[in-house]
Amino acid sequence: MSRHATTGEVLALIRSGEAVTRADIGRVTGLSRPAVSLRVGELLERGLVVERTDAPSTGGRPPVRLEFNAAGGVVLVAALGASRTRVAVCDLAGNELAGRRFHIDVEQGPDVVLPLLMDTWEELLGDRPRSAVRGVGMGVPATVEFAEGRTESARVMASWTGVVIPPLIRQRFDVPVLVDNDVNVLAVGEHRGAYREETGDLLFVKISTRIGAGIVAAGSILRGALGAAGEIGHIPVRDGGGVLCRCGNIDCVDSVASGTALLRELRAAGKDVKTIDDVTALVRAGDAETMAMVREAGRRIGEVLAGAVNILNPSVVVLGGDVAEAFGPLVSSIREVVYRRSTALATRRLRIEPSRLGAAAGISGCAVMVLDHVLSARAVDDSL
Amino acid sequence: MSRHATTGEVLALIRSGEAVTRADIGRVTGLSRPAVSLRVGELLERGLVVERTDAPSTGGRPPVRLEFNAAGGVVLVAALGASRTRVAVCDLAGNELAGRRFHIDVEQGPDVVLPLLMDTWEELLGDRPRSAVRGVGMGVPATVEFAEGRTESARVMASWTGVVIPPLIRQRFDVPVLVDNDVNVLAVGEHRGAYREETGDLLFVKISTRIGAGIVAAGSILRGALGAAGEIGHIPVRDGGGVLCRCGNIDCVDSVASGTALLRELRAAGKDVKTIDDVTALVRAGDAETMAMVREAGRRIGEVLAGAVNILNPSVVVLGGDVAEAFGPLVSSIREVVYRRSTALATRRLRIEPSRLGAAAGISGCAVMVLDHVLSARAVDDSL
Repeated sequence: MSRHATTGEVLALIRSGEAVTRADIGRVTGLSRPAVSLRVGELLERGLVVERTDAPSTGGRPPVRLEFNAAGGVVLVAALGASRTRVAVCDLAGNELAGRRFHIDVEQGPDVVLPLLMDTWEELLGDRPRSAVRGVGMGVPATVEFAEGRTESARVMASWTGVVIPPLIRQRFDVPVLVDNDVNVLAVGEHRGAYREETGDLLFVKISTRIGAGIVAAGSILRGALGAAGEIGHIPVRDGGGVLCRCGNIDCVDSVASGTALLRELRAAGKDVKTIDDVTALVRAGDAETMAMVREAGRRIGEVLAGAVNILNPSVVVLGGDVAEAFGPLVSSIREVVYRRSTALATRRLRIEPSRLGAAAGISGCAVMVLDHVLSARAVDDSL
Repeated sequence: MSRHATTGEVLALIRSGEAVTRADIGRVTGLSRPAVSLRVGELLERGLVVERTDAPSTGGRPPVRLEFNAAGGVVLVAALGASRTRVAVCDLAGNELAGRRFHIDVEQGPDVVLPLLMDTWEELLGDRPRSAVRGVGMGVPATVEFAEGRTESARVMASWTGVVIPPLIRQRFDVPVLVDNDVNVLAVGEHRGAYREETGDLLFVKISTRIGAGIVAAGSILRGALGAAGEIGHIPVRDGGGVLCRCGNIDCVDSVASGTALLRELRAAGKDVKTIDDVTALVRAGDAETMAMVREAGRRIGEVLAGAVNILNPSVVVLGGDVAEAFGPLVSSIREVVYRRSTALATRRLRIEPSRLGAAAGISGCAVMVLDHVLSARAVDDSL
């Protein structure tokens, strides 16, 4: 292994602004002038860097500035939800260039869903050449064995269990394909988009049809041994009353406090609710019974989060997902229980707040995930 | 910031075996011959590297091999327990050169305990010059704000709350001083000493007077925002019966299943037990009531660990501490509950096993912690 600065490492210096001229690069890396030229030449040729010449200020030839070229390619991203999916084409800085949202039942399986995604990407690409595509990033509502992109445990996406997604995408887009579970992607998006300067320790909790969490620890996603970390939905609550969860255990927080559980309990209480929107309407109308049930769900979730806070000691717990976003009372109940039941030190500077990015975190998290990979020094060097 | 290979980076190449001759270093780093000589010269002068000349094999002058010099200095380490403390002097590879164990009541406070530790280090150093001491590593039975070495929350060490330990040590040993909580130190020692090749995701659980955990995630200790991560002792169990914990909450696993709790419950049942050793004797004698209580404690701990396993998805849960080490029935109950109550994916390849290193993990974890710091490229360069 050579420690000489590689082309990929030179790109990193330009992207971060550590070096903005050829002379800078020579000084910082110790590379000879011809070696710098060779590497910069490769980056210019690949469209990852552009040259800018400023107007001369003091006479003489101005130095040529080198800039990372966000327009030097695109990444294709898709944030799949149980029912709602967002698909987009982003530039190399992660900005959305074109996007589409639609309702799609992921249960139709990969044979239906993946071609639909790929068709959509092609439409969104428009006139851009296929060669501009640098990578694909996807979030899916299932546990994912990240290294391979295999959907491991897919309660929402039962028809996807064991599917290795990347090769199926690479049949049409032969680029690196990264797949992670939807909650990890939201956690990455939220952290990079809204909290990166503030903290490296963030717990993102999605409260929607189901309950799950994505963990950012010391700035990186914590995946665990098999990519299953953050699976808080199947931690049991106390005094749950013996509700059977679809996982086979009883009183999992998912079975007593998720959006699905709320709907079930409200229906059992005689309320006419079909979707979370119906529940929102009842909360807005101040229906006492509904409010009580929502608060109770918040306390259940808070109980489980109090344990997660003791284990992880994050700086911030971000509550996202359509249920969390809809209900103030839910968030206050969660907050109350976590502050009461976590240790004094773990809550000393803990903030618990609603998602700042909302659903946009999905697309941006997918883009960050794939860009971190394809623009890494190693990937750039391997692709030369 | 320069990307030229520094003296510290050259040391890293020699330690890892990536480069074993001056010519290797030149090839790997791209440094010029005089630059290599300068850096190697600094390392030789500081005693961090030694030269070895092999017998010539093919005639001609044999190349001089460069080796990391584990004898080039020492680190001072101390693993403080609530009652038992181990103190040692280790070489730069972490091997214990001289050590001592004693019983000391840490509650006597830093004014008594720290001078005693420093006196012991001086005795153990013997004829070695003070200048050989490169750093100090300590584990203490309290939560520690790692960056500063401040004991934050010290239920066992109440007289230490808010004490910033490093400056007190540096009055006599003016070297880098690293302090972490005892369970993190055990987790590091166990991981590096016994599991490094197998996994980067390990949960170390200490079951002793109190219950706590140290988390290794992707190869590094997870500390959280304030160093409080791994505080599993104050997660409540279900149906705990309303036991008031010293933290002010009820039914914390610490208050119903720690060594302290076991002794309290056995005494309430009329058993004559003063220490964990007395409990061990009853278990060995097959006392049915004691066995049942130990199994029940195991189930309580297992319940909390099942949640931690869902959150962290480790490859291995290591059970250490004197209570865990003494009781087979405790370990089997923990195992049974975790396998039943964690998700299928989280337990698919999960191992739950007793500590391989036992109490030795404390000293070796302290040594690893301080050596990782003082031999890092940055610290070596800063010290030149």
